Amino acid sequence: MASMDHSQTFVTPRDVRLAARSGALVGSTAGMANGFVQVNLVIMPEEQANGFLRFCQANPKPCPVLAVSEPGARHCDLLGEDLDIARDVPSYRIYRDGEFDSTLTDVSAVWRDDLVTFALGCSFSFEHALLQNGVPVRHIEEGRNVPMYKTSIPLRRAGGFSGNMVVSMRPFRAAAAIRAVQITTRFPQTHGAPVHLGDPSLIGIKNLGSPDYGDAVSVAPDEIPVFWACGVTPQQVLMDSGIGFAITHTPGHMLVTDIPESQVALL
Amino acid sequence: MASMDHSQTFVTPRDVRLAARSGALVGSTAGMANGFVQVNLVIMPEEQANGFLRFCQANPKPCPVLAVSEPGARHCDLLGEDLDIARDVPSYRIYRDGEFDSTLTDVSAVWRDDLVTFALGCSFSFEHALLQNGVPVRHIEEGRNVPMYKTSIPLRRAGGFSGNMVVSMRPFRAAAAIRAVQITTRFPQTHGAPVHLGDPSLIGIKNLGSPDYGDAVSVAPDEIPVFWACGVTPQQVLMDSGIGFAITHTPGHMLVTDIPESQVALL
Repeated sequence: MASMDHSQTFVTPRDVRLAARSGALVGSTAGMANGFVQVNLVIMPEEQANGFLRFCQANPKPCPVLAVSEPGARHCDLLGEDLDIARDVPSYRIYRDGEFDSTLTDVSAVWRDDLVTFALGCSFSFEHALLQNGVPVRHIEEGRNVPMYKTSIPLRRAGGFSGNMVVSMRPFRAAAAIRAVQITTRFPQTHGAPVHLGDPSLIGIKNLGSPDYGDAVSVAPDEIPVFWACGVTPQQVLMDSGIGFAITHTPGHMLVTDIPESQVALL
Repeated sequence: MASMDHSQTFVTPRDVRLAARSGALVGSTAGMANGFVQVNLVIMPEEQANGFLRFCQANPKPCPVLAVSEPGARHCDLLGEDLDIARDVPSYRIYRDGEFDSTLTDVSAVWRDDLVTFALGCSFSFEHALLQNGVPVRHIEEGRNVPMYKTSIPLRRAGGFSGNMVVSMRPFRAAAAIRAVQITTRFPQTHGAPVHLGDPSLIGIKNLGSPDYGDAVSVAPDEIPVFWACGVTPQQVLMDSGIGFAITHTPGHMLVTDIPESQVALL
């Protein structure tokens, strides 16, 4: 992947942000600035944002809020210095009238003074912790994006938003699955412990080989699929709600913050 | 069960011990003196005990050592005051030449000055924590002993002892299984996190309906069997080793200590 070529170059979070800002980086941020929290971005007009914040508070596993900007602000001190929300993500998605509209590498031209930005925790943080603890992560081994699935798990309705959870899946042998529960429990702000393991049909997933987002990965007969709440959930919810205008990051193309991963670990 | 009739009466650990000492209590200690640690006992001559301690240190999940007595001592200050190792357990098992010999309610008559007592953590402690956290425990719901199985999981050879792990099994729906991993992780001195979950055949268990110790329990189609290292492991290991003389508690008939469960929780 193109991102892998850059991972040695962009060592600090600011390196990554400046590369995205200049247009030099338009690919995935996976593996970059290791040890620092990367976040999902969800950006929408203040009129919907107040309700969306209540929705996130009601559904903290898929939508763990690390920071909320002031309306119109393109900076966010909680996330980092020298940070431009409208330019520092390598790839953005624009939604109009509840549908995906276009992909942009810079959203300065569509920025509005009423836009509120939500920074939501991302599983990249706990994947780094899994690897550091010797727990292999299949989609990383196979050089793919993590497989993500729509489920039948209902979210709590709040602030005018509702829908079902989107989950990411990582397969493990049993001992590693148990270890993965322990490790990810330490990261409640980046989706925390799994929401399901075992039979996918119990949460409405018909075929592990056909993810709704990301790529399929191989699952061995002695492995158990383990499912985590996923930061793509709000993108699905925004579309389902028919929101008039919203911006998100492109999955895998995250905002890299100055927050050390150790700071979002419980233990 | 007879033990249930006593559970209201024997509120403190000392109440339970005195009842066992007097012969009034000969049944299971399940549910008694809630909030205090109950322990597995393994008692053997000093000649084998030094090696057995190394074996326990090498296999802490099935054999978590809470206390080791001095040779010949029938008291153990770490476990409680007014405590007689030879009389305070409701039911003991005597092993001779590697085979189960007899059951006694008082081992004073067979006590020897060279006997060393090992107190090993017991899953009763974490079961209490599971229930307190709203995680149902099937064998308790069904009024049975926990099902236990011999496995193909090899133990680390040490001190002249070896063998395979014995595990206990509790079935849960996925969300409760994940919660159970979290809760039991807090109790490393009482077997800690599970050693396996899912397909029993992967650890050498052919039929969940035919446990090697304890009682079978029902497992629903949407449930996952979860397996913990079990304190019956050393009894199996002692028999396999052909030990000349040893005493253990009868499974489920534990020594109740003065140690609060909160004291053996990590968090």
